[in-house]
Amino acid sequence: MQYSQDFKTAAIALCNAGKFIDSKGWVPATSGNFSARLPDGTIAITTSGKHKGHLQVEDIMLIDHDANSLDGKKSSAETGLHTTLYKRYPTIQAILHPHSINAILVSKIFGDVIVLENYELLKAMHSITTHETRITVPIFANDQDIPRLAHVVDQYLDTVNDCYGYIIAGHGLYTWGESILEALRHLEALDYLFDCELRLHGVRKP
Amino acid sequence: MQYSQDFKTAAIALCNAGKFIDSKGWVPATSGNFSARLPDGTIAITTSGKHKGHLQVEDIMLIDHDANSLDGKKSSAETGLHTTLYKRYPTIQAILHPHSINAILVSKIFGDVIVLENYELLKAMHSITTHETRITVPIFANDQDIPRLAHVVDQYLDTVNDCYGYIIAGHGLYTWGESILEALRHLEALDYLFDCELRLHGVRKP
Amino acid sequence: MQYSQDFKTAAIALCNAGKFIDSKGWVPATSGNFSARLPDGTIAITTSGKHKGHLQVEDIMLIDHDANSLDGKKSSAETGLHTTLYKRYPTIQAILHPHSINAILVSKIFGDVIVLENYELLKAMHSITTHETRITVPIFANDQDIPRLAHVVDQYLDTVNDCYGYIIAGHGLYTWGESILEALRHLEALDYLFDCELRLHGVRKP
Amino acid sequence: MQYSQDFKTAAIALCNAGKFIDSKGWVPATSGNFSARLPDGTIAITTSGKHKGHLQVEDIMLIDHDANSLDGKKSSAETGLHTTLYKRYPTIQAILHPHSINAILVSKIFGDVIVLENYELLKAMHSITTHETRITVPIFANDQDIPRLAHVVDQYLDTVNDCYGYIIAGHGLYTWGESILEALRHLEALDYLFDCELRLHGVRKP
Repeated sequence: MQYSQDFKTAAIALCNAGKFIDSKGWVPATSGNFSARLPDGTIAITTSGKHKGHLQVEDIMLIDHDANSLDGKKSSAETGLHTTLYKRYPTIQAILHPHSINAILVSKIFGDVIVLENYELLKAMHSITTHETRITVPIFANDQDIPRLAHVVDQYLDTVNDCYGYIIAGHGLYTWGESILEALRHLEALDYLFDCELRLHGVRKP
Repeated sequence: MQYSQDFKTAAIALCNAGKFIDSKGWVPATSGNFSARLPDGTIAITTSGKHKGHLQVEDIMLIDHDANSLDGKKSSAETGLHTTLYKRYPTIQAILHPHSINAILVSKIFGDVIVLENYELLKAMHSITTHETRITVPIFANDQDIPRLAHVVDQYLDTVNDCYGYIIAGHGLYTWGESILEALRHLEALDYLFDCELRLHGVRKP
Repeated sequence: MQYSQDFKTAAIALCNAGKFIDSKGWVPATSGNFSARLPDGTIAITTSGKHKGHLQVEDIMLIDHDANSLDGKKSSAETGLHTTLYKRYPTIQAILHPHSINAILVSKIFGDVIVLENYELLKAMHSITTHETRITVPIFANDQDIPRLAHVVDQYLDTVNDCYGYIIAGHGLYTWGESILEALRHLEALDYLFDCELRLHGVRKP
Repeated sequence: MQYSQDFKTAAIALCNAGKFIDSKGWVPATSGNFSARLPDGTIAITTSGKHKGHLQVEDIMLIDHDANSLDGKKSSAETGLHTTLYKRYPTIQAILHPHSINAILVSKIFGDVIVLENYELLKAMHSITTHETRITVPIFANDQDIPRLAHVVDQYLDTVNDCYGYIIAGHGLYTWGESILEALRHLEALDYLFDCELRLHGVRKP
């Protein structure tokens, strides 16, 4: 198959995102998957089973907006979670799904949601301009039935105005943005804020 | 605009400081800002919205001592916190403002100040020559109104002889020095001492 | 001695595995050892006393399936633990034994076994396809008498169907796979899951 | 001054040791100092005030066994702690003094000594061949009067057979070996064992 220049640019950016994300320890073993929407509406997405810290361009495949493979490669089982988000949010162009331990621990310790408020770093989130705000990151039960899980997520998102990411319990985080850079910024900020909350619950007051 | 050699030297040093500070995880997303005062009294400072671990010389701008842009670039909202410090302390030549998690946690756990005493590493602070001393790092409430926050800081600094840095709650640390190297030394030492204090409160005695 | 191409390929892969494992802090000082079975049934294994993060090809030696040196080099005292596993499991081709602190702590805190369940990352283990499962990692008392320890391990393995690794108390983890890559995937996943369990026991619920 | 080849070799090895030790975060700011004894009994040692992660050969100086400068450079205030150890132990050829947070925390939590026993990694210590042993690392009060502190250490060492290192409270670790490599192995092992002990005291049993 002849890939477009847009695809190649996105594929290289996803490989580089993988190197960065792995350097943080957020995609152990072959976990995680990443995608970017191209200008024509097709989607570049990581294939299944590769270590996300050592991605090559050939580890990125092309799908349509219904998750059908356009190049004969086999996509991750979780591709449907990506396409559902792209359909809902026309302006987002990238989705990142790492398996950071902080997201796992948040899902084991905080019930259905984690609320983040009064942190300067909230200003890293799209269109937030003050720390005097709060964001809610929902936590969903894990499910190997991806269409069913995608439906649960979608139903939740119907009920909220702004959402920057969600956690699947015992599994990992989904976050997104209007570019790969913005999605990375959201990821770095959310993991930092999860870390703050977890460490606050582990430290005794003097 | 034609930049001076002093500006270029300071800009490269700020970019390198950013790489080091990011390698420690202290400037997640696009947080933080850094500056250096030039011999003619103008100030090189990071522009807004760039990742501080990947700074290029063109991400550094020039302002005067009242925070007015001299090259048409847009400075960070927090520039006024830098110029207030430079006016107060004629000998300091560099200011670093990272968002390390330790500073955040200190601000959530210790009330208005954290007192650091009896550590050998206190000797990393300017003109301290023994561990048998104590330093106080004040903690101020966060505020998006930077002139008001600068005034609160300034009023506090009127009341103390020596100060090596301050924390803005839920936000990050400001520290400074007579050179970028000294400011980096103060930063490394303060974060280490915050880490010691936080971990002491999280570890039970045997 | 003239080494085969298979040996050289395995030796380079073991050196690279060592660099990765050391970058995680899992083989401090000169601890740990790694091996790979070659197509002819002989085994490439790290020699004794070298830092596993700085391995050279000459730090890898060749043994037969009874742990006899085939090239005159001196193997680690723990070689018998490797050959016992290779005899039991004909399909495994690589064994990794690091000394990660998480494995040490698990052995000090959890009694005879640690049970891992309901984590998406369990799918990193060979032939596991859902998080709705559990795996058991046994913990054995440390013993400098390696034949005796190998016998204790072997007797335990007689009683279970699937096993992905075991911990020697106060010592470290043994894990394996059908290739060096699979063994590395098992190692990365197990250490991550140990970390999750340990941190869950150190964090208070909000 | 014309330095010998032995000095140059030792100086390069000390610079490389510094890079490794700094990569672990054990010499923040400009803390720490390292030395190596040369075959003629003179000692190569780091000068004062340099960052130990960025040492150049010119940051290493030459002293005699009474700590007198032989090349006009100014040595660290703590040089007397090095020469006292070299006089006591004729076979040691290297001394490393980092400021790791684990050593600080151990000194704040464990009283006069920390006892390490039943760890496989104890075998990283010179001439230890089994985990069924224990070593004692003494903890001394910090003191800016270095001759007085050296005397306290020396008096303690008169009373014990084997000692692999000591901690100065709120300050850092001293460890040594028959070569720079052995001293690094002792350092890596001791910090790992301190980490184990500290984390065991911070984790609740399930």
